[in-house]
Amino acid sequence: MPDSTPPRTAPDPVRLADKFALITEQWSPKIVARVDDHDVRLAKIEGAFSWHKHDDADELFMIVDGAMRMELRDRTVALAAGDVFVVPRGVEHRPVADAECRIIMIERAGTMNTGDATDREGTAGEWL
Amino acid sequence: MPDSTPPRTAPDPVRLADKFALITEQWSPKIVARVDDHDVRLAKIEGAFSWHKHDDADELFMIVDGAMRMELRDRTVALAAGDVFVVPRGVEHRPVADAECRIIMIERAGTMNTGDATDREGTAGEWL
Repeated sequence: MPDSTPPRTAPDPVRLADKFALITEQWSPKIVARVDDHDVRLAKIEGAFSWHKHDDADELFMIVDGAMRMELRDRTVALAAGDVFVVPRGVEHRPVADAECRIIMIERAGTMNTGDATDREGTAGEWL
Repeated sequence: MPDSTPPRTAPDPVRLADKFALITEQWSPKIVARVDDHDVRLAKIEGAFSWHKHDDADELFMIVDGAMRMELRDRTVALAAGDVFVVPRGVEHRPVADAECRIIMIERAGTMNTGDATDREGTAGEWL
């Protein structure tokens, strides 16, 4: 984990395709960059996740490859490559992908992917 | 501008290609989403920007289309579509693109694109 001391020079660039190639587990976000106190996390997702919300953090999804839908309590939002969707704090949501989908997530460091869900083990991501 | 009150539901998804199509001016970042206190900004860039730094904010660049390079005082980093690069706070940098390049930037809301440079007018972005 990087500490909070500002680095004196920039970290190396991140090649997203190379990082995605290293991800073998679905629903297991990997941190590849940090901007201020926010993570850039990559994930491969397939199937339905658990319904949950994050009371204190927004969560941004950017679809890189494939398609997914974000189920909300009042509607379902279809998302495909090149789309960005922000789930505001406190809003219940459930990501679902019929086939494997590659996404980027941006959210505050430390945010658990499961939010308030208790039916599966959560993670705040690990550096890749 | 969205205020700081948490919305009760999610904003509509952002189709990046549609938003980029609306951008006519180079070096003029447009805000398309916000996650917590951080903006997602889109920009078309071409040519050389001014040398500058941001003393209190990191700045993330994601290249969507084309190629650019980030000149730093100690090296130059080549970036192409699918690359992510974070310029840490306090690090002098100058983005340069030989041909028009489309990028996403993530940085704290209010951060001026020119940082401490005084040789051109800066902007903290406008919502698109």
